[in-house]
Amino acid sequence: MRRPDELRGLVEDFLGELPFAGELGRLEEALRYSLLGGGKRIRPVLCLATGEVLGRDPTDVLPAACSLELVHTFSLVHDDLPALDDDDLRRGQPSAHVRFGEDVAILAGDALLTEAFRLALRYPTSDVARELADATLGMIGGQYVDVTTNGNLDREGLRRLHELKTGRLLRACVLCATAVAELGPDERARWSAFGDEIGLLFQIVDDILDASGTAEELGKTPGKDEAAGKVTYVSLHGLERARELADDARVRVNACLDTLPGDTSVLAEIVAAIRERRA
Amino acid sequence: MRRPDELRGLVEDFLGELPFAGELGRLEEALRYSLLGGGKRIRPVLCLATGEVLGRDPTDVLPAACSLELVHTFSLVHDDLPALDDDDLRRGQPSAHVRFGEDVAILAGDALLTEAFRLALRYPTSDVARELADATLGMIGGQYVDVTTNGNLDREGLRRLHELKTGRLLRACVLCATAVAELGPDERARWSAFGDEIGLLFQIVDDILDASGTAEELGKTPGKDEAAGKVTYVSLHGLERARELADDARVRVNACLDTLPGDTSVLAEIVAAIRERRA
Repeated sequence: MRRPDELRGLVEDFLGELPFAGELGRLEEALRYSLLGGGKRIRPVLCLATGEVLGRDPTDVLPAACSLELVHTFSLVHDDLPALDDDDLRRGQPSAHVRFGEDVAILAGDALLTEAFRLALRYPTSDVARELADATLGMIGGQYVDVTTNGNLDREGLRRLHELKTGRLLRACVLCATAVAELGPDERARWSAFGDEIGLLFQIVDDILDASGTAEELGKTPGKDEAAGKVTYVSLHGLERARELADDARVRVNACLDTLPGDTSVLAEIVAAIRERRA
Repeated sequence: MRRPDELRGLVEDFLGELPFAGELGRLEEALRYSLLGGGKRIRPVLCLATGEVLGRDPTDVLPAACSLELVHTFSLVHDDLPALDDDDLRRGQPSAHVRFGEDVAILAGDALLTEAFRLALRYPTSDVARELADATLGMIGGQYVDVTTNGNLDREGLRRLHELKTGRLLRACVLCATAVAELGPDERARWSAFGDEIGLLFQIVDDILDASGTAEELGKTPGKDEAAGKVTYVSLHGLERARELADDARVRVNACLDTLPGDTSVLAEIVAAIRERRA
């Protein structure tokens, strides 16, 4: 079993060499700027690690894994736009629209999303691309809830928001690996539950970091949620209780892992890293 | 053979009943607003008519045909944004961002693009979705050329711009039908040449209409190209010469049609309608 750092290296290599459609011309520069800006690659690493548990070599899983990273990057580029979250800083660098202009950033996001599908369509069946489409629509639905109900959500609404905005894509990291491995529906359902719990854990930690991290640590503007009056796990529960909830979520993720077949030790390592991340 | 109007009716019915992902929630309203705003449906009708020549029933071709209309609509929603073409009027109605706000319009465009892929993925093979991805990337590349070289193109540059921005999606209307019909590469190449020529004809007529139509006829702001200092067939050649070029293009499209097997009379009717359209 490859460790997370080794999987991350494979992702970086694959993304660095990924050919984009020639018709994009110099727009490619904006795609590479956003894609190769030093992300943590949690999504593709999770996908590759799931694939390894299912006996699939990373070589087979990399297109699916990296299609998820492209969708994630597309969402960051569009969410950072002035009309949405209006964030000038991303991964420690100027956001795409600050660097290239709003027009180019909109087009770069559109191109990243389309390239994600082109990548997911490298497989002989449409299964991976279908998982990607479903997850992307859930994520967009979550972002819509976020921009239209800003600061006006109860606990159930917050849970639903995060399930969509963050959770669907994280779950898809697990599900795309099960699609590459051609698992049947019953087996996929167990993996799906693990994907849901890891999404929730990720989001609680994200809220904690936004409330307590520094720009230097995060590579993006901290305290944005509070400044925007957004409802988060921290605003609803306070920082201490949010940390307890994150620990509870980690316990549930690990309980899910125990129900899954195969050597899930690397997945457990990824779960620990998500709980303990500082950026 | 069904006439263009009958095919258009099938498209309207299919789009009117198209289910969107439930996770989009009320964002669906913005998607339907832009999609059902009374377009001419040239792209899906061209796809269905090509399918009929190839012996495929519209029922089989409608998902592919309408995926192209969704991509077209996504491109209109994003292109109309203030950071891009900044157009407040579309199909005789306020543009999506005027009606719903820029944030919602960006998300609605993203969702339309993703729903287009979900639709193209209804087929057992990935072929249609691959054609859609390639065409969409070409179109985005064309829009990038348009926003970055505004008013600074020679004739060759203009040809390349239109080949990408308008031509790729129109060619894909033909190619997606050949994908549904599972044609081999040699046969597809002949249809592809027809698709290229029809794209060129469409664009020359579009430039003529922008220079000579009224807002009432067009359902969008006329004279935008000239006001923006854009290079068009009219700005390069004058209105009279542009009309001659459109007639030449029509002759070439029909010459292509003559090389294709089957009853292409409905396609010839669509070509005539494109040349003679007033909006």
